[in-house]
Amino acid sequence: MNTLPIHLALALPDWVAPHVATWPQAPDDRARMRLVLGLARENVQRDGGGPFAAAVFAAGRAVAVGVNRVLPERNSLLHAEVLAIMLAEKHYASHNLSGPGLPRLCLVSSCEPCAMCLGAILWSGLKRVVGGALREDAEQAGFDEGPVFPASHRYLEARGIELAHGVLREEAREVFDLYRQQGGRLY
Amino acid sequence: MNTLPIHLALALPDWVAPHVATWPQAPDDRARMRLVLGLARENVQRDGGGPFAAAVFAAGRAVAVGVNRVLPERNSLLHAEVLAIMLAEKHYASHNLSGPGLPRLCLVSSCEPCAMCLGAILWSGLKRVVGGALREDAEQAGFDEGPVFPASHRYLEARGIELAHGVLREEAREVFDLYRQQGGRLY
Repeated sequence: MNTLPIHLALALPDWVAPHVATWPQAPDDRARMRLVLGLARENVQRDGGGPFAAAVFAAGRAVAVGVNRVLPERNSLLHAEVLAIMLAEKHYASHNLSGPGLPRLCLVSSCEPCAMCLGAILWSGLKRVVGGALREDAEQAGFDEGPVFPASHRYLEARGIELAHGVLREEAREVFDLYRQQGGRLY
Repeated sequence: MNTLPIHLALALPDWVAPHVATWPQAPDDRARMRLVLGLARENVQRDGGGPFAAAVFAAGRAVAVGVNRVLPERNSLLHAEVLAIMLAEKHYASHNLSGPGLPRLCLVSSCEPCAMCLGAILWSGLKRVVGGALREDAEQAGFDEGPVFPASHRYLEARGIELAHGVLREEAREVFDLYRQQGGRLY
């Protein structure tokens, strides 16, 4: 008989909430990126997760975060941005993160979003994205970014989405180095 | 205090498993698409879900399915393909759907995958995708497909992924008509 899988229980690792609870208010993009890069480093060091983290900020405070959980959860879609967006939508009980009554939200990701995550950003309604490492940094570290072209970014920008990449780029690249030093698997 | 969302419990609607349990063996793409289009119609009629469904087939049998749950679950990422892929990876306990020991799998989607889902397909390891309605059909019905270009499809094909679109296209378009007739929301 067919035993069709029906349920998915997804969760961030136990250490994430206490870690994020220590975050101070982050007044600007660089301060927010510094926190997100710390989260990515923790994900590599504690949990064998991929060297990626993301957070949705309302002004200086993170309302939801994500870390890469592809290998620990055996789920290829669990990029940091995917978890951060889904959890932010849960927090606001809305599929539209620029919906009425919501604060102005910003996604900060330790790396320029891949093809899947760019699409996810578009559907989420988020209007501002800040990335750390660039596509070429991820590729040098052995990660594919998928079919993202200059026209892909223009497509999002034409829909009112502001994209800023390369914030704290050097520190962001160092998370990839850490992952390699720890023998992290490429996939 | 920060009450960071940590958990996500995702599930297909209760009617899905009994519905799919009635599916006969489907010997070819058209037979599989017919079943997936039936699932998309049910999703519109029963549940107010979006007019989209998808299934991962091993030969003639569906091992996992998904339906669009964006509005009911208030989660903009819950496209049919996203749920079908995540559930197939759960079924096989693998983040790689072309990993060792797995049968040759095929994703059948009622509509050509959007930008996010194309990326998700790439990361899943799926090597064959069959789509029903075309991009222009979805756009005519009021749905955005995101930054997908001919180069996007070539990118996947260069990684060994076979893409077949427009299978039972007319029947697939009729699901969009049904959604409109039922007053379905565009988002």
